[in-house]
Amino acid sequence: MRDAGHFGSIAQVTIVGAGLLGGSMGLGLRAAGYRGRIIGVGRRLESLAKAKSLGCVDEITTDLQARTHEPSQLIVLATPLGAFEDLLGQIARIQQPGWVITDVGSTKRAVCEAAGRLLPRPERFIGSHPMAGGEQHGPEKATADLFRDKPCIITAGADADAEALGVVRSLWRVLGARLLTMSPAEHDRQVAMISHLPHALAVLLVELAARDRSLTIASTGFRDTTRVASGDAGVWADVFTSNREAVLAASATMRGELERLEALLRKNDREAIMELLSRNKAVRDRWVAGASAGLD
Amino acid sequence: MRDAGHFGSIAQVTIVGAGLLGGSMGLGLRAAGYRGRIIGVGRRLESLAKAKSLGCVDEITTDLQARTHEPSQLIVLATPLGAFEDLLGQIARIQQPGWVITDVGSTKRAVCEAAGRLLPRPERFIGSHPMAGGEQHGPEKATADLFRDKPCIITAGADADAEALGVVRSLWRVLGARLLTMSPAEHDRQVAMISHLPHALAVLLVELAARDRSLTIASTGFRDTTRVASGDAGVWADVFTSNREAVLAASATMRGELERLEALLRKNDREAIMELLSRNKAVRDRWVAGASAGLD
Repeated sequence: MRDAGHFGSIAQVTIVGAGLLGGSMGLGLRAAGYRGRIIGVGRRLESLAKAKSLGCVDEITTDLQARTHEPSQLIVLATPLGAFEDLLGQIARIQQPGWVITDVGSTKRAVCEAAGRLLPRPERFIGSHPMAGGEQHGPEKATADLFRDKPCIITAGADADAEALGVVRSLWRVLGARLLTMSPAEHDRQVAMISHLPHALAVLLVELAARDRSLTIASTGFRDTTRVASGDAGVWADVFTSNREAVLAASATMRGELERLEALLRKNDREAIMELLSRNKAVRDRWVAGASAGLD
Repeated sequence: MRDAGHFGSIAQVTIVGAGLLGGSMGLGLRAAGYRGRIIGVGRRLESLAKAKSLGCVDEITTDLQARTHEPSQLIVLATPLGAFEDLLGQIARIQQPGWVITDVGSTKRAVCEAAGRLLPRPERFIGSHPMAGGEQHGPEKATADLFRDKPCIITAGADADAEALGVVRSLWRVLGARLLTMSPAEHDRQVAMISHLPHALAVLLVELAARDRSLTIASTGFRDTTRVASGDAGVWADVFTSNREAVLAASATMRGELERLEALLRKNDREAIMELLSRNKAVRDRWVAGASAGLD
């Protein structure tokens, strides 16, 4: 197994929620040569059976406590955010000192705070957020290289256990992600700007176009701009409520930017509009070129 | 030539601006079996020569008046919007009664107003707006089926000449587009909502992410949401200034929607947020399914 690092010592990976992200982790670990057990935990046996038949996990159970006897174990929370608090409560009752716990949630302050409050050994919890998945879901869409060359943010407090951090870093390196580390608050502020605000705008653009009966003339530009609005509503309702402070701030910032643009339009200041468009075209083109390996 | 209709009588098509849109019209007409002359007019001989070598046009010239002696002729303005007024002024000096004039500009009020003001026979001008092209440009990207199954809006006033309208409708039918007819003002209001506002938001999202230094963690969602921001800055500066009233209104409407969303977040009203997300996911999924033939 390449780049295994601290991960080599982990005898079992328990994936809670074997959907697109959890399933892809299982497939990616296997593809990288991981030889330990991979257990899929979930609420619906049908979906778990699907994940098993696709090779995402080896064994399945609807009871988190039934297959978690292994002392050297990584538990990954890959359910929607709304289930995290309940799951951390269940883990708290049985946590063993050798366990490492992580998640793949789209916000980090809430889950890190809940881990700190609920777990007897919160220093063994390390937050992760792989920037991958798109609007699809379910183990049917899982692929071994979903995380390859994608950014993955790790959030670990000052009191994080070094070995647990090493295991989580190794996990993502094995899956091919590009690691970044930041505080949960900084993470939530940044994802509000590059993910949650864009998501809100996509949803509101669909809302306005439908209200306006102008969807008939919409074409490929609108399809791409609003693609994320086809994401799972429950998952995103959790994201917005979980990260509401940062989303509120990002939304207010965007309203301010719209007002600045409106002022340019009112002045009919073509030169300033041209400058705004050119500058950001250049920024985006550079970003796409630089990130192109990870954006397939 | 299939579906030729009124178009069968047109001996020459003069395309002013043989870029992505103009070049694709030439290729599409040829692919459909059009046997008349196709003339490419432009400012840069190099780009025109490229269009000719790619088969988009038969003959090229930098002088609009040099090759427009043909009395049965369709002239298509396919330059950026900013050149339309000057071109209509040139055409006004030589317009023949049998000519039909159209354009492929992204806004319609300004060009229809200019045609009415400048042309001796304004009833022979019919506005067109094919919803195709994306952020690419240049004849190298032109394809015969660029307009196939895409919406194309025709704007014709009450005083439009029926034969001229028939020619323009036949043109787009030959190219495979789905025709819609509306007033220039209604067109501009609708495109502000489904194209110009989304474009502005994409540009501002790039602006904010760059300012915030959070582009590093942006991934495929952000890439798609902001794709249109890589469009040509000059073309879009023209669009925004040409359609500033409708863009101002659309921008203010979006600020209102953001404030409504912020109110839901402040109340932590997960149920209402869920309803907003579900409803618009359903609307978008239905739209994508229905429009899928045209969205490749």
